Amino acid sequence: MQAYDALAATFTRIGAIQDAAGILGWDMQTLMPDGAAEGRAEQLAQLSVVAHEILVAPRTGDLLGQAQDETKDLGEWERANLREMRRAYLHASAVPADLVAASSKAASRSEMVWREARQNADFALLAPHLAETLRLQREVGQAKGAALGLDPYDALLDGYDPGMRRAAIDPLFAALRAELPGLIATVQEKQAAEAAPLPLPGPFPVEAQKALGLTLMKAVGFDFARGRLDVSLHPFCGGATDDVRITTRYDAASATGALMGVLHETGHALYEQGRPARWHHQPVGSARGMSLHESQSLLVEMQACRSPEFCAYLAPQLAATFGGEGAAWTAENLHRLYTRVAPGFIRVDADEVTYPAHILLRYALESAMVAGDLAVADLPGAFNEGMRDLLGLSVPNDRLGCLQDIHWPGGSFGYFPTYTLGAMAAAQLFRAACAAEPGILPGLAQGDFTQLRTWLRDHVHAKASLLETDEILLAATGKPLGAEDFGRHLRRRYLGEA
Amino acid sequence: MQAYDALAATFTRIGAIQDAAGILGWDMQTLMPDGAAEGRAEQLAQLSVVAHEILVAPRTGDLLGQAQDETKDLGEWERANLREMRRAYLHASAVPADLVAASSKAASRSEMVWREARQNADFALLAPHLAETLRLQREVGQAKGAALGLDPYDALLDGYDPGMRRAAIDPLFAALRAELPGLIATVQEKQAAEAAPLPLPGPFPVEAQKALGLTLMKAVGFDFARGRLDVSLHPFCGGATDDVRITTRYDAASATGALMGVLHETGHALYEQGRPARWHHQPVGSARGMSLHESQSLLVEMQACRSPEFCAYLAPQLAATFGGEGAAWTAENLHRLYTRVAPGFIRVDADEVTYPAHILLRYALESAMVAGDLAVADLPGAFNEGMRDLLGLSVPNDRLGCLQDIHWPGGSFGYFPTYTLGAMAAAQLFRAACAAEPGILPGLAQGDFTQLRTWLRDHVHAKASLLETDEILLAATGKPLGAEDFGRHLRRRYLGEA
Repeated sequence: MQAYDALAATFTRIGAIQDAAGILGWDMQTLMPDGAAEGRAEQLAQLSVVAHEILVAPRTGDLLGQAQDETKDLGEWERANLREMRRAYLHASAVPADLVAASSKAASRSEMVWREARQNADFALLAPHLAETLRLQREVGQAKGAALGLDPYDALLDGYDPGMRRAAIDPLFAALRAELPGLIATVQEKQAAEAAPLPLPGPFPVEAQKALGLTLMKAVGFDFARGRLDVSLHPFCGGATDDVRITTRYDAASATGALMGVLHETGHALYEQGRPARWHHQPVGSARGMSLHESQSLLVEMQACRSPEFCAYLAPQLAATFGGEGAAWTAENLHRLYTRVAPGFIRVDADEVTYPAHILLRYALESAMVAGDLAVADLPGAFNEGMRDLLGLSVPNDRLGCLQDIHWPGGSFGYFPTYTLGAMAAAQLFRAACAAEPGILPGLAQGDFTQLRTWLRDHVHAKASLLETDEILLAATGKPLGAEDFGRHLRRRYLGEA
Repeated sequence: MQAYDALAATFTRIGAIQDAAGILGWDMQTLMPDGAAEGRAEQLAQLSVVAHEILVAPRTGDLLGQAQDETKDLGEWERANLREMRRAYLHASAVPADLVAASSKAASRSEMVWREARQNADFALLAPHLAETLRLQREVGQAKGAALGLDPYDALLDGYDPGMRRAAIDPLFAALRAELPGLIATVQEKQAAEAAPLPLPGPFPVEAQKALGLTLMKAVGFDFARGRLDVSLHPFCGGATDDVRITTRYDAASATGALMGVLHETGHALYEQGRPARWHHQPVGSARGMSLHESQSLLVEMQACRSPEFCAYLAPQLAATFGGEGAAWTAENLHRLYTRVAPGFIRVDADEVTYPAHILLRYALESAMVAGDLAVADLPGAFNEGMRDLLGLSVPNDRLGCLQDIHWPGGSFGYFPTYTLGAMAAAQLFRAACAAEPGILPGLAQGDFTQLRTWLRDHVHAKASLLETDEILLAATGKPLGAEDFGRHLRRRYLGEA
């Protein structure tokens, strides 16, 4: 196992460098003084190049070849580790160094221009930079695709969600697309016929919000000996191995906006904190992919914490925290506030039912862009047409349209579908968990996440990247990723179906 | 200049990695959750090894050789940069990789054992580990000495303070040693004959201390767009290029303990923030060495901020901050509090007059240990004897004696003298600054540091490592580093001599 051991040492180094970058990235979003931005960008770029150079060094390829002969001496985890090492090596070595540099620079530039373009709803400003970023990402996709035997979009997707393919996504999204517009209309009709939920009367002092958030993080199972909660403009889960740092932002006018963000990121954090310590810094010890990662955040936020059971626990906590009294503070009203459905322009503000429509649109558009079937110049028109089709909305300007997301200007093509694949996986896993452990829902009604957390740890977190996503879902739920449980969940929660 | 440019790119990478480590080290001392300690140690170790490997790669040596032929095309700064690159390369490549690893591991281990040994005043527990650390540091000193043409102690010293030698230190410290015991006795007699200063009545709320600290940092000239103030157990100045982070710790029972720490670290920070941006990440852009660095902190804290002029400014600020009234809050009383002299066991708590005695002792002991003339087993006896000789104190246990400092267990031999060399340089620079700019002292009486800061920036900070320490002092003060101005300062401040 000489070659395998040498590879493990190499990946320990790469993992440590990536962890270092994780903490520096967190710091950049939370505490870093403005004047440090240029230096920090240099640090992150150099760390990224160093890690890349270690990974694609000829020695790594040689060792991977030699390790092939050692396979019979390796255990199950080591074999999976070798598979994941090879995947990482193929992804990294497929792209020539000058293309790595060019695509990374173009993405940085178009992301920077995007900030101004979005502010001013000025798509023309962004267009040439986005076109260049897309051109280079298509080249990256072609290079990776050639090495991996995939078409360019699948090759890009595989970088975010190993093993995921358009051939798997298309039928799932087709099922959703068939059902969604009708479902949204029906839910809206139903909600329009009922009395509107009562808004919670504020203000909601930030210190009190924070204290409640920390209490709930603890209840869900966040390990504060290996993580932190802080504030940033855009909430995220980042940091490093055994140092998982989530963020939120507080709005004194919103009782639960920050709180729901905290619970969402806590779901991500549980996954990170639940990865097996034995395999830290090895590829097999990583989270499986973005779909499964998103499933963990959505399972905690959407499946568990917006359930009627948890609302019964949360409502009195909220009332006590903010000194609330009366009809607005009941569990029933809280649940109705949490399940309000209304099509809107902005993806990140969307409710659980309309959110997938935003993803269906973006998936279709980015697939077409990567395939060369949609030019950047035609993006605003296609985007706005999709919004009309899917959500019945007329986009008034590109700030509320195709300029709203950072992903494309930042060079991320193939990421969007993981949000809705995650929502599907969350519904499927939560249903299986509740069926296997009947105490989960009664537990949530007491603010007790122990059984849910244990089930997730055993069936998802502790598996890390030992198995592929579909194998994890199959072992945990008896079937590969499907759209049915998500559809059933929506109809049940929003239409009251059994 | 092909070779030079390639070297510059190499050192940019090394500098960025060191900056990354600087932020990670800061985070470790301020915010990191306990459970992340092991992972962080791994990150820092890997970054250190990566930077070391880049530096000692055969390519660096080759390029340094080739760049020799390009010298005529280089400007003054580039030539100095090449000199500093070569110094860094010689230091790093002199020590075989296995000795680097062994000495680093031994130091980590003995530092860990030291925490327990100090706690329990148990020197026997530390002794074998300290002996091993010393043995390996002597080997490092021999290896570096062979490469640099220096004796082992000078070679270690050169790592902290480039160009500094025992031959330069010995006469300076001999002069101090001749004067110090008599001076301490005379000052104590004088102070005993006067009325004792009045203690400031507390408590002193931490938030108010912090606000005043921030105000004074700003007055001294700290640039908050490129730095921060935070809290840690042991105050320090760290962080990265354009991201200088200082820390303090607050004690609600002390009005100015945290504040003086803040001013000390602000002196360090001004140096870091004043290094020329053009040479960031290049060796020539670094601070010159630990003596000059310490001179900048002591110049701000001891020379400027404990001057009668600044006390006249600070006293009413303190009174206003803490709502103080009466005789304790006058500038005169504050100055007397700040200049109280009393020999004590603990170096870091020592006043300005007795502090050098602690350093004289440590310098003598570590010189002897590195030379092989003092065995670790004999350290406590030698330490305690020195404390009797120099300060007239009988050390009751090793916690208050040779176990108090982290330096030796942590593998730092050759660092201690820089504290007192810094005090000498501070006195010499401050005297020259005040002579050149008669507005400096009147400025301090108004809380205005502009003239002092400008002078320091021009004469010290902006020079970075263009010149050697003595050349910087010669250009700034008309003479190389000497002991006279420090002696004169002490006699003036503590005995009232002109």
